Amino acid sequence: MKKLINDPRDVVVESVEGFVLAHSDIVTVHGDPWYVARVGGAVPGKVGVVSGGGSGHEPMHVGYVGAGMLDVAVPGPVFTSPTPDQIAAAVRAADGGAGVLAVVKSYTGDVLNFETGAELAQAEGVEVERVVVDDDCAVESSTSAVGRRGVAGTVVVEKIAGAAAARGDDLAGVARVARRAIEQVCSMGVALAPCTVPHVGRPSFDLPDDEVEIGIGIHGEPGRRRVPLASADEITTTLLDAVADDLGILAGERVLLLVNGMGGTPLSELYIVYRRARALLADRGVRVTRSLVGDYTTALEMQGASVSLLRLDDELTALWDAPVHTAALRW
Amino acid sequence: MKKLINDPRDVVVESVEGFVLAHSDIVTVHGDPWYVARVGGAVPGKVGVVSGGGSGHEPMHVGYVGAGMLDVAVPGPVFTSPTPDQIAAAVRAADGGAGVLAVVKSYTGDVLNFETGAELAQAEGVEVERVVVDDDCAVESSTSAVGRRGVAGTVVVEKIAGAAAARGDDLAGVARVARRAIEQVCSMGVALAPCTVPHVGRPSFDLPDDEVEIGIGIHGEPGRRRVPLASADEITTTLLDAVADDLGILAGERVLLLVNGMGGTPLSELYIVYRRARALLADRGVRVTRSLVGDYTTALEMQGASVSLLRLDDELTALWDAPVHTAALRW
Repeated sequence: MKKLINDPRDVVVESVEGFVLAHSDIVTVHGDPWYVARVGGAVPGKVGVVSGGGSGHEPMHVGYVGAGMLDVAVPGPVFTSPTPDQIAAAVRAADGGAGVLAVVKSYTGDVLNFETGAELAQAEGVEVERVVVDDDCAVESSTSAVGRRGVAGTVVVEKIAGAAAARGDDLAGVARVARRAIEQVCSMGVALAPCTVPHVGRPSFDLPDDEVEIGIGIHGEPGRRRVPLASADEITTTLLDAVADDLGILAGERVLLLVNGMGGTPLSELYIVYRRARALLADRGVRVTRSLVGDYTTALEMQGASVSLLRLDDELTALWDAPVHTAALRW
Repeated sequence: MKKLINDPRDVVVESVEGFVLAHSDIVTVHGDPWYVARVGGAVPGKVGVVSGGGSGHEPMHVGYVGAGMLDVAVPGPVFTSPTPDQIAAAVRAADGGAGVLAVVKSYTGDVLNFETGAELAQAEGVEVERVVVDDDCAVESSTSAVGRRGVAGTVVVEKIAGAAAARGDDLAGVARVARRAIEQVCSMGVALAPCTVPHVGRPSFDLPDDEVEIGIGIHGEPGRRRVPLASADEITTTLLDAVADDLGILAGERVLLLVNGMGGTPLSELYIVYRRARALLADRGVRVTRSLVGDYTTALEMQGASVSLLRLDDELTALWDAPVHTAALRW
């Protein structure tokens, strides 16, 4: 295992320490229970937005803490859910008196721990709503999730929920918009090479030199099928067709197109995937009116990418366009 | 070779096509000679700023085209200089009547082709100044460069030169500021694993499983020495000490700290490097007043990182902070 790390047990803590030092104008860290919050704390009267989950997907979630997106992020160990205590503390810290929306990725551990964490906070009088992101259309269930998994579309949901909270929606309103975004976003990924979890020390799966895994999860979970290594255009066609068909996108509709890198893929390759996805959407008569290309939801150094579509309307477009000031997304 | 590409000969063109489609609000592409320019063309009365070089370092340089940074970027083939004709056309396109600054990375091919390209544009009446970035303190000369190489510090120079042009400095003034930034920036990198140039099809160098290359160049050129794989803290100490000593940074001084990923390194590891660099600078009594952490000057999917320092004063800080609106840097 070749990594720029110290003791594998310290990877997450040291990385978050560096992150908070580098972005001390935006975030602050709270210890025991451990979470990362916006500088200045909860905004009075604004719905708080919290997310979290296993680490190893950076910049998700700590990179999305800041004005217009998350108030607090709760990092767990690599690929492992944070504890209910952490989540409860994060929810309390995000509460400015208007309640808190927790954005949860659809994994068994996250769903359970966020449920318990929310109950703990509710017992102390914090109003909490939870939404579960399950945008991965590769498989209907897997070893890590009951139902579809939550992957790169989570970034889109967090941005839109954060914008709804920032414009002053009440908790029911923010939850409504977040659920609408979840219904309208769909993703599928591919892996060319696996990643290695630091404390495990060996690749999370084996993949022959001439095969790729279509429908990979962001922890290396199996996807739909292994196929021979094909061109970027062929692989992109498989991903885009699956996503567009699953969402039922029709000619004349508008979408946000997100091409997400898994951590070890050159940016130049993501733009080759984007180029093909654009051509396929043009063939379908679908208009790409917003785009995002880069490493937004990663799996350590996994080599691969995912394609996500969000069906846009005027409201979702305005919420996407609203100002955001985080370490990883800023406009 | 496992890559998300089509024909290896089409990698650069297809990637740039995707890039321009994704960022059509910021950039436009010109064919034959081939370059990427700001939407709206040269700004009348403003000094134009141009850069370019071999591709494979994305987001450098196309990702830095936009308000407050580059007016035009000229991409060559992977790790190969663009032609003098391309450069001449780029310089002409960037000229708003106040002349053009060309920011050149210190490689033999780039230096020669930018010299010829500038002469061609000058022959048509465009005033041109060139500055050569040679921030890599790993080696005094290499197979690819006469003198020090230009690496991640180039991003800093391009940002500062672009800001000087945007505030209305004349050509001599923009060149003066750029040269001052070049004198005050220094970098050194490490590779854990090599990259593969698509049209070559095999890794650009071999590195045993238990060794790293200290002082690696951004094309995989040899560095200072190969050493056994060590902890992130030990490797960072080697890099930071070399850079800080070379610049002669003293207690009480202010710096910008850039931790740059080479393309295949998880963001979490870059923050572990950043954390250690901050501690070492604190020990030296040096104040880190600006930071940048991420993949800004890559070598395809190379696994590794570099540490850069820029000695800051009030003027360089103000130019760094000035608004920028590009695909890869925005504030």
